[in-house]
Amino acid sequence: MVATDSIGVQTRGEGDVQDVTAAVQAIVSASGIRDGLLCVFVVGSTAAVGTIEFEPGLVTDMAEALERLLPRDAVYAHEERWKDDNGHSHLRATLLGPSLVVPVVEGKLTLGQWQQIVLLEQDTQPRERRLIVQISGED
Amino acid sequence: MVATDSIGVQTRGEGDVQDVTAAVQAIVSASGIRDGLLCVFVVGSTAAVGTIEFEPGLVTDMAEALERLLPRDAVYAHEERWKDDNGHSHLRATLLGPSLVVPVVEGKLTLGQWQQIVLLEQDTQPRERRLIVQISGED
Amino acid sequence: MVATDSIGVQTRGEGDVQDVTAAVQAIVSASGIRDGLLCVFVVGSTAAVGTIEFEPGLVTDMAEALERLLPRDAVYAHEERWKDDNGHSHLRATLLGPSLVVPVVEGKLTLGQWQQIVLLEQDTQPRERRLIVQISGED
Repeated sequence: MVATDSIGVQTRGEGDVQDVTAAVQAIVSASGIRDGLLCVFVVGSTAAVGTIEFEPGLVTDMAEALERLLPRDAVYAHEERWKDDNGHSHLRATLLGPSLVVPVVEGKLTLGQWQQIVLLEQDTQPRERRLIVQISGED
Repeated sequence: MVATDSIGVQTRGEGDVQDVTAAVQAIVSASGIRDGLLCVFVVGSTAAVGTIEFEPGLVTDMAEALERLLPRDAVYAHEERWKDDNGHSHLRATLLGPSLVVPVVEGKLTLGQWQQIVLLEQDTQPRERRLIVQISGED
Repeated sequence: MVATDSIGVQTRGEGDVQDVTAAVQAIVSASGIRDGLLCVFVVGSTAAVGTIEFEPGLVTDMAEALERLLPRDAVYAHEERWKDDNGHSHLRATLLGPSLVVPVVEGKLTLGQWQQIVLLEQDTQPRERRLIVQISGED
C-alpha cells in the first residue's frame, strides 16, 4: 500500500530552515497507513531535507557552518558558466541530501522529542518548494 | 509486508562509532522478508547512521575530520542559549544524517565486504541510543 | 510488490561523477510499479550516490570542495595502517552517503528538471561499480 502527497513551502532564501514535521505527520494520519517507510523528498537541486533540533540557535549555526565549509564567494566553475550566483548552493544541497526516510510505527513518525523534519533552503533567492511525501507500508 | 524492530546501543560519547551490521542482518533474517527496502533510523538529533569500512583507523580519522570541519570549541548560538555543550554535535549529526536505506535481496543486506552499517555518536556524553529498523518488502 | 535490478558503472576514479538517471528510470519503467519508494544504493565504502544538477562546472566544483574539506594529503590513520592511499576517499563517501531514496509517482521519478541521480566516485583508482536499484510499491 502506497500513499503519496505533497507539501508546498515558501522559503526566504539561503539559510532558511523550515519545520515541516506537523505537515508530514498530518499526511501520515490521513493516509491510513499504520506501519511503513516514509520518504520526504525535495524537488530541485538547491535545497535539502534532514532532521535537526528546530530552534533559532541551530538555524543560525547551520548557516554559519555551511558558509565556512562552502563559502558563497569562493570561485565556482558553475558560476563562471551559468552566472546564477548559486554554485555554493548546489554543493551544500548535494552534501546535505534531498531525501529523508523515517519509519512510521503505529501511525506515528519515530522521531525524537527534539528532532524535527526540516527543509533547508540553500538557494540565494526565496523559492516556492515542493516536497513529495510518500509512504510505502500497510494499514 | 512491513516488519519493525529496534536495536539498543550504549555509546561512549563523541566520536564513538559502533558496528550494528550483524544486529540489523539478524532482524532481516527473523522478519521472513526476502526482498525489500530496509531503513535504519536513529532517534534523536545528536547521532547519525551511515556506512563505513569499520576499522579503528577510520574511526579515528572520522573524529578528527569532523573536529576540523565543525570544531567543538567554535562559537555556537545553540550553546549560548542552551548551555548543553553540544552545538557542534547537532550540526555534525544533521550533516551526516539520521537515516540509512539499504536494499535487501534474497534475505541479505546488499552491503560490500568492507562496508558496515554504523551508528556514529556525536553527542559529548555517553548515550543510550535507540535504532529503529524497518523493512518494507515481500516474502 | 518489490522489484530489484542493478546498474554497472565503470568510473574514472576520484572526482568522477556519472549521471545514472536514465538507467534508473528505465528500471522503473520495466518494473511495472507505478507508485513507490525507489532506492539507489552503491555497494562499497569509497563511492556515494546523490543528486546534483549534472553539468561539468559542478563536477569540477564538487571535486575541489571535497579536496578542501577532506584533503587527499592529510594524515589518515587508515592510510598508516592499510597503505591503500584512500583514507580521504572513505571519509568523503561516508559524508556523502551510499544511498538515495526517491519517490516514484505514476511511473516517473519525482526529480526536478535540473536534478539528476549521480554516482560520485571517491576512490583514487578507476572502479567497476555496482548500483542496486530497488522499488517497493504497487502497480
